[in-house]
Amino acid sequence: MAKIEINPQRLLDDLNRLRSFGAQGKGVVRPAFSDADVQSRKWLATQMSAAGLTPRIDPAGNVFGLPPGDKPSLLVGSHSDTQPEGGWLDGAYGVIVGLEVARTSLEVDGPPVAVVSFQDEEGRFGPLMGSEIWSGKLSLSDADAMRDSAGLTFGEARRKICDLCENTWVAPESFTGYLEAHIEQGIVLDATDKTIGVVESVVGMRTQSFLFVGEQNHAGTTPMSMRRDAFQGLACFSQALNEAFAKIVTPDTVWTIGHVEVRPNADSIIPGQVTFTVQWRDGDDARLDQMHEVVLRLAEQTCQKLGLSMRNQGFFSYPATQIDEALKGRIQNTAEHLAPGRWSHLPSGALHDASNVSHCLPVAMVFVPSINGVSHSFDEDTAPEELVLGAQVLAASIAG
Amino acid sequence: MAKIEINPQRLLDDLNRLRSFGAQGKGVVRPAFSDADVQSRKWLATQMSAAGLTPRIDPAGNVFGLPPGDKPSLLVGSHSDTQPEGGWLDGAYGVIVGLEVARTSLEVDGPPVAVVSFQDEEGRFGPLMGSEIWSGKLSLSDADAMRDSAGLTFGEARRKICDLCENTWVAPESFTGYLEAHIEQGIVLDATDKTIGVVESVVGMRTQSFLFVGEQNHAGTTPMSMRRDAFQGLACFSQALNEAFAKIVTPDTVWTIGHVEVRPNADSIIPGQVTFTVQWRDGDDARLDQMHEVVLRLAEQTCQKLGLSMRNQGFFSYPATQIDEALKGRIQNTAEHLAPGRWSHLPSGALHDASNVSHCLPVAMVFVPSINGVSHSFDEDTAPEELVLGAQVLAASIAG
Repeated sequence: MAKIEINPQRLLDDLNRLRSFGAQGKGVVRPAFSDADVQSRKWLATQMSAAGLTPRIDPAGNVFGLPPGDKPSLLVGSHSDTQPEGGWLDGAYGVIVGLEVARTSLEVDGPPVAVVSFQDEEGRFGPLMGSEIWSGKLSLSDADAMRDSAGLTFGEARRKICDLCENTWVAPESFTGYLEAHIEQGIVLDATDKTIGVVESVVGMRTQSFLFVGEQNHAGTTPMSMRRDAFQGLACFSQALNEAFAKIVTPDTVWTIGHVEVRPNADSIIPGQVTFTVQWRDGDDARLDQMHEVVLRLAEQTCQKLGLSMRNQGFFSYPATQIDEALKGRIQNTAEHLAPGRWSHLPSGALHDASNVSHCLPVAMVFVPSINGVSHSFDEDTAPEELVLGAQVLAASIAG
Repeated sequence: MAKIEINPQRLLDDLNRLRSFGAQGKGVVRPAFSDADVQSRKWLATQMSAAGLTPRIDPAGNVFGLPPGDKPSLLVGSHSDTQPEGGWLDGAYGVIVGLEVARTSLEVDGPPVAVVSFQDEEGRFGPLMGSEIWSGKLSLSDADAMRDSAGLTFGEARRKICDLCENTWVAPESFTGYLEAHIEQGIVLDATDKTIGVVESVVGMRTQSFLFVGEQNHAGTTPMSMRRDAFQGLACFSQALNEAFAKIVTPDTVWTIGHVEVRPNADSIIPGQVTFTVQWRDGDDARLDQMHEVVLRLAEQTCQKLGLSMRNQGFFSYPATQIDEALKGRIQNTAEHLAPGRWSHLPSGALHDASNVSHCLPVAMVFVPSINGVSHSFDEDTAPEELVLGAQVLAASIAG
């Protein structure tokens, strides 16, 4: 099979061209269906045509570039929309890697490779919308009713580009699998001086919100023995959780209490209420479920101990993604060949379009380092040689 | 010496009349220098005149009622301003007790008793403003520059009533001591089924604010071992503080973390910053200072342990108040006489005008129960017979 040698300069030039749509300083403002996003999707379609790929924009705004012929192809891509204040790489990197690999493979008569830029991965209307719709997890009619923070519906937004879109979908059966290159969005590769990450799982996530209710009271006149302090409930719970989780987690498991609201939140008043969220992630759904039991049990025990009452304010579950062993093995082999000793396995702590696509296709992912772990920020960056290496590893895994 | 038998119905009638200024439902809205407050001060002066006392309103808006003659008198009172949403008793009770006791003593040719309603105890412009100025702790020119939450200065506010005020002060030397009756504003008397509280100290207070700074990061992609989570710093600190304080406090000591701000406060982001306040109160200033050392040491140790940095965001100290043993002894004796077995010693966990007045006069305080410990609320209440008993105990302690 032909060796697929990508053109590093063309890759970087296209990445910088995509960056120009919505550029602000070092960063990019290109949310789904913004003018910058629509213009960038038109540009992507033009680039696909120029490369000999057939561009197709589906009803959800996902842009595919399909190789000639009827043979099923390997799909490579990510998303090109950004956070309201986004970095220049994020999903854009994986889209341009897909374009470059599909283009190169066509040039050298390699295996058929398609490229995709999914729409609204960043969740203007809902998390990973474009790939969620395309993979059949969310119906278009349900999606159409979802709103952004300003009240605009997905349906209204996508109508703005209906002159570009087709009424038909690109069938998942057109593809044999899905590869996604992405920046790590974490500090592990950078901190451990690795240049390639072979993703072994996209972690599942659970989010549990609680309201602890105690008794609001005067902080001077209420003896400690007569208090029911909701904040103390949270502090105790957090410590108990750390101790209990330590016994059941792996080094890759993470958990966070990121959102806390104390009421009435005044120096001289014993907190009567605290609302908070605990979120945890791991590659193993069984462990995530076990952790949920611990969370519920400790919340209840803490409230009983401190005389608080507890309300379950909502639970959200996102399952872990199955990474395809064969695809992962090929990426691993080429990583070892192109970057011996400078790659490592790691979990993806963030969700990606690959999570949705795994519902209909085998998937695998390759990461390149994020400098200082920074992402979703104008300061997001990766060294050019590592951007190139990531594309080379992915390309070689297709040919190899 | 004459026995001072107050008139229970007159006491309750005057309390209800005062309640009508700013009444809202069961509560009262009568902040310092509001129209309701100004009208109530005029009414108080009229009642003083009618009782044979000479009303004097000083430049700070404090209303005194002085008995005839040149002999130094005992000052009895509190404050009649309320919180923005206040209860009907709070300081108003002590003011009407003062009026009733001064009036009765004059009627029965008892010892000379004066009455006072201090201004802005509730801190519209600053904590305990009226008594702080009168006792010489705060200059009028400094006070004049202080602003309420809407930006109005104390100077502008008091000018609204300058037609009522004198340019001279009532000299502290006019008085031999100060007695203040007040609702407990706590649950101890109500919960222990006591009807009278003999205050043995007005606690001192310390308030320390911190900013803990960690590193804001993605809650999915940042391993636990690489985190610097500011909220975790607060939770650890709170637990360590509880353990350390347990070794040095008494059952009357209290401490509270009442104000907490987590940033950026999102489910999926590791908290980069947390601002919080720890406040503690005790009757013993030496213990309060020892506790401050513990607070500072544990904050520093916690931050070192978790890789956080720490900023001291402000410290506020209010010393404990010396209660006069002789005055307290007289209240205690009459409490035992009028309510045998149904009184107890207790500290005042809240600050009171007596705290400021103690800088120039011997002071003592008597408490009546707050039903369910509720105060600073429209629901604040006390049984009528306990309101009467409190006034009787105070009156008897003057005569006895």
